[in-house]
This record gives sequence, C-alpha cells and structure tokens, in this order.
Amino acid sequence: MSVSFLYKADPVRGRIWAEVFARQAPHVDFRIWPDIGDPGAVRYMAAWEPPENLATRFPNLQVLFSTGAGVDQFDLPSLPADLAVVRMVEPGIVSGMVEYVCWAVLSQHRDMPDYRRKQFSGRWEPRPVVPAAKRRVGVLGLGSLGQAVLKQLRSFGFDCAAWSRSRHEVEGVQCHAGAEELPAFLARTDILICLLPLTAATRGLLNASLFASLPAGAGLIHVGRGPQLVEADLLAALDSGQLSHAVLDVCEPEPLPPGHLFWLHPKIWLTPHIASMTQAASAAEVLLDNLARFERGEAMTGLVDRQLGY
Amino acid sequence: MSVSFLYKADPVRGRIWAEVFARQAPHVDFRIWPDIGDPGAVRYMAAWEPPENLATRFPNLQVLFSTGAGVDQFDLPSLPADLAVVRMVEPGIVSGMVEYVCWAVLSQHRDMPDYRRKQFSGRWEPRPVVPAAKRRVGVLGLGSLGQAVLKQLRSFGFDCAAWSRSRHEVEGVQCHAGAEELPAFLARTDILICLLPLTAATRGLLNASLFASLPAGAGLIHVGRGPQLVEADLLAALDSGQLSHAVLDVCEPEPLPPGHLFWLHPKIWLTPHIASMTQAASAAEVLLDNLARFERGEAMTGLVDRQLGY
Repeated sequence: MSVSFLYKADPVRGRIWAEVFARQAPHVDFRIWPDIGDPGAVRYMAAWEPPENLATRFPNLQVLFSTGAGVDQFDLPSLPADLAVVRMVEPGIVSGMVEYVCWAVLSQHRDMPDYRRKQFSGRWEPRPVVPAAKRRVGVLGLGSLGQAVLKQLRSFGFDCAAWSRSRHEVEGVQCHAGAEELPAFLARTDILICLLPLTAATRGLLNASLFASLPAGAGLIHVGRGPQLVEADLLAALDSGQLSHAVLDVCEPEPLPPGHLFWLHPKIWLTPHIASMTQAASAAEVLLDNLARFERGEAMTGLVDRQLGY
Repeated sequence: MSVSFLYKADPVRGRIWAEVFARQAPHVDFRIWPDIGDPGAVRYMAAWEPPENLATRFPNLQVLFSTGAGVDQFDLPSLPADLAVVRMVEPGIVSGMVEYVCWAVLSQHRDMPDYRRKQFSGRWEPRPVVPAAKRRVGVLGLGSLGQAVLKQLRSFGFDCAAWSRSRHEVEGVQCHAGAEELPAFLARTDILICLLPLTAATRGLLNASLFASLPAGAGLIHVGRGPQLVEADLLAALDSGQLSHAVLDVCEPEPLPPGHLFWLHPKIWLTPHIASMTQAASAAEVLLDNLARFERGEAMTGLVDRQLGY
C-alpha cells in the first residue's frame, strides 16, 4: 500500500524537501498541496496551517509535523487524540534565534537605541560601558531555543538567569521554576527575553504586573508569540520609563496593521517575525530522522505533549 | 629616592587607579596631573595625551603608558628613543570590542539597517535568513582585539578570515598576510571589520580602491581610527551600492563636526567612539603587573615597537 507525505506550507521550501525525500526516502510519495493524490494514503503531513476537517479528509493520518518551532497555529483540541503532533526542532531555527537574541541583547546592553536617536540629532555623547558581568539577562523559557541562547549569552560574560514552568538545571545559569519563583527572577532581570511557547498559561503573560516586577528601566526582547504581549501595558510601561526599550519580532495579528502605534514608536524596534526561520535543507534531515524513528516505534524529536500544548 | 607615577587622563579613572596603587604598590608615589610633585622623581607616566616637552620636563621618565588601546595620539618620533612606550591591553577593552563588533556584524548579517528603514515606512517584509556559515566575515588586524573578536564570531558559525601585516595563524580562520594577499582577502569578504592600528601604512587605507575589491554590497565596520577612512570614498561607495552599509565608531576629527554628512546618512550607523573603553579597575591591575615586570627587567605586555608604530 502506498504511503504518502503531504506538504502544505511555503512552496519554495517544499521543492527543496521534495528533492531530499526523493534521494533519501524514495519509499515515501512526497506530495505538495494541493496535489494531495489519494487522501487515504496520507500518513504524514507537514503544515504551517493544516487543512480544515483534517481527521475526516485524511482518515489514515498518523503524524502532523509543524513546519515551525511552535504549534500554537494548530487548534490542538480539534485534532484526533491519537494523532502525533511534532514541533520543528532543527539547527537552522536554533542558530537564527541565537543570532537574533544576541543582537537584541547587545543592542540594549550597549545603548544602541539611544545612540541611534543621538545620531539623528547630531549629538556625540559617549556613555560609560557597563561590563557584561554586571548586566543581568533573563530568559523566559528553557526549551532547546532558550538553552542555546543562554549558552551564547554566557560566552559574552552576561549574568544569566532563566525561568521555566518545570525545574531545569543549566550550567552557569540561575534557574527559576514555577509561578512562585517568577517574581524573584523578574526582580533581578535587566534585560528580559521571552522565548515561551503560546499556551493558555502564557497568553497575556507580558503585562503590566510582570513589567512592574522588573527593575525600573529594564529592556524587553519578545521572540515568543504575539498574543503573549498585552500591547497597552507595553505602551504604558515604555511611557512611564518602567521599560526603557522593547525589541519585538512577533505581534498579533501579523503583519502588524497599518497605522499601529508600534510602527513609529521611538522605544520599539520591530522586525517581521524573522528572528528564526526553518532552514529547508536541515529541516528535511530532521524530518526524515523523525520519520525513521516513528517507523521503528521510537520517540520523535519535538513530539508535543497535548496536555501542555508544546 | 622617591619614585613617582604621574597620571594624566580622565580624573574619575585616575581616582580609581590611585586607590589600587595605594593598596597594591604603596612604594610608588601615585600623582594625578597637574599635581606633578618633583618632576625628577617621575619615572612612569600614564597618559592619553602626554604633556609637551616631555623629555626635558621629566628627565628621568622611563615608561610612558597609553591609557587606551592605541598610541597614535602620541607623536612617537618626538619621544626619546630609549623611552619605553606601552599600549593598554586589558580585559575590559577586549570584551567591549568583542561585544561591539558582534553587535555590528549581527546587525548587518541579519539586515537590521533595512528592517529599521522598513519599520519607519510601515512595511512588514520578511527577508530570507542567510546561514552564518555562508556569511564571509573578514577582520583587518590580528592583534589581541582582532583575535578575540574572531574567536567570538566563529562561535556563531561565520566563515571567518583575517588579514595582517605579518604572518599569523589562528585556528579556524583563513589568515592572509602582507600587501600581496590583501586583494584575495577582500574578494571573499562580505562584512569587513577594520581593527588596525593607525600608522603611516594604514592612514587612508579604507579608500575607493579597497572598497572596489570587496564583493558588491559588502558591509563595513570601522573600529580602528578615523584617519584610516577616506570619507568621500565611503560616501561614493554607499551611493553606488558597492557598499550596502557602514557602522562607524571612529571618525576624524572626533567629535564629528555638526552638519557633517555622516550624521543623517541613511546607510551609516555612527557611535561616538564607544566600541571599547578602558575599564579602570582591570586596567590598573594590568598596569601594576607591567610595572612589576619592568622592575624585574622582564618584557611588558603591550610594549610598542617604535619602528612599526604599534
């Protein structure tokens, strides 16, 4: 019986994947949406946004792969309980995020938003350099991205801490866990990085109460998901000076609507969700490795816990 | 006989040094300009800009320490031939430069100048991410700063090369040496970092001919010295697109004069010579270590070759 893999996302990346599959997994019939072939043969699907009525249209679907690092674009409760859902964990996503977060942290650490403003107004005003060891950086989220980001930040000598839902240990990083340890983590954090997945528990987490728990003048770097941020609370915190600056790579909705206050805000640097992107070639390798694991009955990398939502 | 150390630079740093000397080198009479005491007792001097008639006013001066990484602010030929001249090589200068250069390279690598412009005009336009392994970064200068910068850039996975006057070897870095190997180095460099000392040979080195040897659309990061850059040639290269962007931390003169074209240039990011600054406490430790070496007749760290000028 024929086994097919249906791909429904960016077509340029799809063609790269098709080549890798043809070479390394010729037993799989790789198909690019909307060329679905026999729906009953579709065992595997990779999608950014899955098609409607997934379960009825593809009754033999066994694994749904996200083409991105998150699965919040999936409506998890609507998916069959026995369908395996897998996040994309691949080296290209990780290195892109490490680059972006280091860029954003160094920007705020070295006062670059202020120097850009000064350049526009023709002011040559050096500020003292704060040693990295005296700059307290904190990462919300300790998945594969958070851990890779912390490793690179540590190599610059920053004073690093992290917070996550469940207990983790990372060398050289003060790890905090659970709601009761969040205030202590925030109180020692000069530059806060949000790398959390979007779940019911993290929706709206970046709000006035959280900002008020940071030291006055803290910086925010948001590379999680747009709905985690309460926009009005960010604007108020920037106005009052409680936050000095925000680097935002995500918003809600995306693209940010025309005329939105974030576009021209003097204390916001905005990028169009480019912090990290799946790299087609390395992602295909990860996908094939996961397929082989699944066929052998082994655990897949990035398998989502349907209860936790990530 | 009394031995004194005369300090002539930033007074805030001077008071920090005075404390460190009082604690760790009580046999040395540490004096802050203009309180020079007995000129005949001055054996050591630390200065950014040394006083005039140095040799005649301080006949027993043996070592002149620069308070910065360079000595181009000294008129070397006018100094007595037997006076030891020492550059400042200390961890604070190095880590500051590593931070700044990584920030600037990541900015250009991840198209941040373009995203800033797009934000101002309300455009949400993601661009593909180029993997670091495909970004060819090149450093001019392989002193302690250049080597530290390359080590950190390599940890991001950039394709790294370097050029220096004399032959060096650095792990994982394609090293080029001498005038005859400069064209090959430039031809493979997408992002060029100037970390050279200012000498007769490097004055005006960043000119139209050098820019034309880079791949079209290359980026420039200038953290050397202002007179190494031919301003008109930079403006022409940015206008033609031969260079896509420049990050400048140095210029000539400093501060950059009001109304200068660099202030409002859309393809220039300017900072007021803050890439790296001597950190008072760690610099004092390095200075005391050098004094002890000198008193024991050993080689000092950062001793300047008067012929080479650095």
